[in-house]
Amino acid sequence: MRSAYHEQLDALSSQLGEMCGMAGVAMERATQSLLQADLALAEQVITDHELIAESSARAEESAFILLALQAPVAGDLRSVVSSIQIVADVDRMGALALHVAKIARRRHPQHALPEEVNGYFAEMGRVAVELGHGAQEVLITRDPEKAARIREEDDAMDDLHRHLFTVLMDREWKHGVAAAVDITLLGRYYERFADHAVEVARRVIFQVTGELPTADGELNAR
Amino acid sequence: MRSAYHEQLDALSSQLGEMCGMAGVAMERATQSLLQADLALAEQVITDHELIAESSARAEESAFILLALQAPVAGDLRSVVSSIQIVADVDRMGALALHVAKIARRRHPQHALPEEVNGYFAEMGRVAVELGHGAQEVLITRDPEKAARIREEDDAMDDLHRHLFTVLMDREWKHGVAAAVDITLLGRYYERFADHAVEVARRVIFQVTGELPTADGELNAR
Repeated sequence: MRSAYHEQLDALSSQLGEMCGMAGVAMERATQSLLQADLALAEQVITDHELIAESSARAEESAFILLALQAPVAGDLRSVVSSIQIVADVDRMGALALHVAKIARRRHPQHALPEEVNGYFAEMGRVAVELGHGAQEVLITRDPEKAARIREEDDAMDDLHRHLFTVLMDREWKHGVAAAVDITLLGRYYERFADHAVEVARRVIFQVTGELPTADGELNAR
Repeated sequence: MRSAYHEQLDALSSQLGEMCGMAGVAMERATQSLLQADLALAEQVITDHELIAESSARAEESAFILLALQAPVAGDLRSVVSSIQIVADVDRMGALALHVAKIARRRHPQHALPEEVNGYFAEMGRVAVELGHGAQEVLITRDPEKAARIREEDDAMDDLHRHLFTVLMDREWKHGVAAAVDITLLGRYYERFADHAVEVARRVIFQVTGELPTADGELNAR
């Protein structure tokens, strides 16, 4: 039989997983609003952000109640502490999707992006959704192999981000500084979104193994 | 007589305070390295970042031990949970100073900044140090008035950031896209540094009052 503690921790993990899924969907929609200059979709991401923020507050409260009522020790205590840290990462993923939507809204009815870089953002949006779902899966299955896959998606995001910069830095760039500033910020938002998904996966692996993988994936006792 | 719990929580708060001070100094040096194209100083920030990362791991461990050994309840439990969240913010402040130093290093022996925007960054660097010290003071004194002062410094940072963007967007901008990209990222790093200092102050006020101030400074029960 499972203890009340483990049931509550599982419930908390699915709650966090759902938030990752929501953040992924938000980033997907924000990307669409950016690519299509779709104001309604941008507004929807902005409104829906409230739901992620509320989930975040609820998850934090669940973790707190778990600590208060179950007073877990040792590995169980580490798991709850990790959950509290994971909330902050997922919350931030939602905020980054919000930032993307806000740039789409600010530039409407214009497109924020010159057509030349649309492909990069379409792809970064796709990777972001994968990362959201991947982090959700890792939270639920606690499978280290799935966590490794998130790292691969993150590498893909870093590559896209790097290529995007070479396009910007090209002497042939003819879309002016304002577009370059938007693209720089947008690129940073996607990159950070991926970093936070990786961080979620690292924390889950820490919950499972008691060791925190380093940024490059090796396990290190802390 | 003070309990062992309160002594340990105070020790943890000063540890977090010291980290804020270190992050402020790191941002001050990173700013100098940027303004003077001073490679040695940039390298020092990059090396010293290890110290902030280690402090971070130690503070997280102290909070964990406090939870494990003292099993605090109610308000005391909330305080330790807040401390765990504060570690993540201060850790991030250090990482942002590191990013600034890395841009200075990447552009060396060139200056990353055109002279025209030096004044903005000198001022943003000054505000960042104030924020580091301010957050340290708030952590030690738990004084809500000092927390309010951090919010004012953050407003000053936002103003600087906004003005910096109008300079970039000016049709007269003649320093090219590469400089604009660097400045966009740098501006973002300073802005985020300030946001995290505000977040630290909010968490401390939450420790004291049990209410989490909203982003605009009002108290809201959660």
